[in-house]
Amino acid sequence: MAGSDSEFDLIQRYFGAPSADVNAEGVRLGIGDDAALLAVASGHELAVTVDTLIEGTHFFPDHPPASVGHKALASNLSDLAAMGAEPLGALLSLTLPRVDHDWLAGFSEGFLALAEEVGIPLVGGDTNRGPLAISVTVLGTAPAGQALRRAGARPGDRLVVSGALGGAAFGLAHETARRARGAAGATLPADAREPACDRLFWPRARLALGRGLRNRARAAIDISDGLLADLGHLCAASGCGARVDWPAVPRDPLLAQIPDDQAREYALGGGEDYELLFALPAGESLDLLAFSVDLPLTVIGECTEGDAVVVEDADGRRLDVTRAGHDHFADNMGNTD
Amino acid sequence: MAGSDSEFDLIQRYFGAPSADVNAEGVRLGIGDDAALLAVASGHELAVTVDTLIEGTHFFPDHPPASVGHKALASNLSDLAAMGAEPLGALLSLTLPRVDHDWLAGFSEGFLALAEEVGIPLVGGDTNRGPLAISVTVLGTAPAGQALRRAGARPGDRLVVSGALGGAAFGLAHETARRARGAAGATLPADAREPACDRLFWPRARLALGRGLRNRARAAIDISDGLLADLGHLCAASGCGARVDWPAVPRDPLLAQIPDDQAREYALGGGEDYELLFALPAGESLDLLAFSVDLPLTVIGECTEGDAVVVEDADGRRLDVTRAGHDHFADNMGNTD
Repeated sequence: MAGSDSEFDLIQRYFGAPSADVNAEGVRLGIGDDAALLAVASGHELAVTVDTLIEGTHFFPDHPPASVGHKALASNLSDLAAMGAEPLGALLSLTLPRVDHDWLAGFSEGFLALAEEVGIPLVGGDTNRGPLAISVTVLGTAPAGQALRRAGARPGDRLVVSGALGGAAFGLAHETARRARGAAGATLPADAREPACDRLFWPRARLALGRGLRNRARAAIDISDGLLADLGHLCAASGCGARVDWPAVPRDPLLAQIPDDQAREYALGGGEDYELLFALPAGESLDLLAFSVDLPLTVIGECTEGDAVVVEDADGRRLDVTRAGHDHFADNMGNTD
Repeated sequence: MAGSDSEFDLIQRYFGAPSADVNAEGVRLGIGDDAALLAVASGHELAVTVDTLIEGTHFFPDHPPASVGHKALASNLSDLAAMGAEPLGALLSLTLPRVDHDWLAGFSEGFLALAEEVGIPLVGGDTNRGPLAISVTVLGTAPAGQALRRAGARPGDRLVVSGALGGAAFGLAHETARRARGAAGATLPADAREPACDRLFWPRARLALGRGLRNRARAAIDISDGLLADLGHLCAASGCGARVDWPAVPRDPLLAQIPDDQAREYALGGGEDYELLFALPAGESLDLLAFSVDLPLTVIGECTEGDAVVVEDADGRRLDVTRAGHDHFADNMGNTD
């Protein structure tokens, strides 16, 4: 379906100009034709994924538009990071209830700033009228056979996560409460509110780490649904189990102010931290890897025989972890009907 | 963002199994990881496009779900056809207000039947909760430098369209009227209702023709917004004008029963016929091409100097054509708010 004039104008107006600024080596033909044309370097495979963000499910109706633009791209880049792929190009399908130029200016600013930072050109898109939704497709490349997958982990591999966990879930809980309670709902001291929002609204995709894991990690996944849910996906794909050492799990500093059982829920079950979880065989040096990506990397447990995913406390006792990860069909950020 | 369990289940349940049936030579890794991995044959370029269909804008709420699935894929395949690309893989991002298994069964049946027919594997996707919307990304390949573009037409080139025009607009008008009027709104004789629905609900992408146009046509576009609107896009990209001979424009047989001025509106301004419009230089034989694709191909005019797109009647008089193509931000099929 070709874009109609006003669709074309909207995409051109807000997303057209800066595409020349980003590294667009692989782009043979960008926005404005029936399809974009991209070159995939010889000896490379293409990685491609799509994700849709819905108002009320993935972001608040009053979410700052720049952060919605950032997050829509970042969450997709995180999938490329988990595959160890280099960004090649992005497409944006934007559904808008009306043409709101302020919102569009903010959204495109957030989207394009991140696109420029990581060097991914916007090569196509369309706009439609309807309830606000943002569908982003990203394409990347990796040397053939070297892309990371969820399958491949083996019993004995160390389980490693980047960064710290639970910050986005913490931010979501407090932002949800604040909206529910109005002005009186400020449950956080003012100096903690901004970092909590940052975790939720401005996630980073671990692209450099993903690249660094090629030929090193046996399996990888990004933590979007929550550590235990995503670990479950990795184990299921790899045909192994896992033992997680709860005291070793790196917690977001924001969790220091809340009780341990709540911190556990956020760090193990909370989604949208967009850190990477990977399985590292015995021979690979973690220190060297951490040094090269300038990011904390923490061993949180190991892959095991069987298929059980268990969490143990400092005394080796098994913890009963109830929340297995968020599910867009189970819990929403707001009313979407 | 990795799929949560129920997302994964929905995609797996309705779209997982048959992917093995389709020609999936280029697929290194399909549904179920953070991204799909595809191989692009050496010496080929990648074509990629995304389009979103919204309930109420692109299809009726009571649109048969199988035809929604078909149309969501067909409208995207039409863009690949317009580029002269071979299908490589498709991704589906599905936003659903609730899990309606009857709808999903019908939708996936229509989507997958067409996917199998044209040999495009479904390699990824996600599901979300929200107002019904369907975002489809398709990828295709063409020998490097041979993909068709909108730019490239030159004054003197013949303008050619495939098939016949106006059937989808005719079907839309009557289906809209029928819904507005209830049972009494059957404005068509029963034997015309089915073909009118077919034009609207079951479009075909002209993939074989697109391939046949490589190295022959100078420029091409698919007719999704309407002949004159899409011709305008082609001329703008090519830096030329066009003269269309209205009596030569191939009209859908359904238009024989309506007045000429209404037929003109449907055939010149109506969208979603998904035929191809292309510019053919003097040296290329149209008969040979038509024979090889088994599809009517009709010269409707020619490219001209300047930038004006004009339509002439049988006497060479310029026609005043008011409707320049449909615009999703101007007219809707129904209420989407």
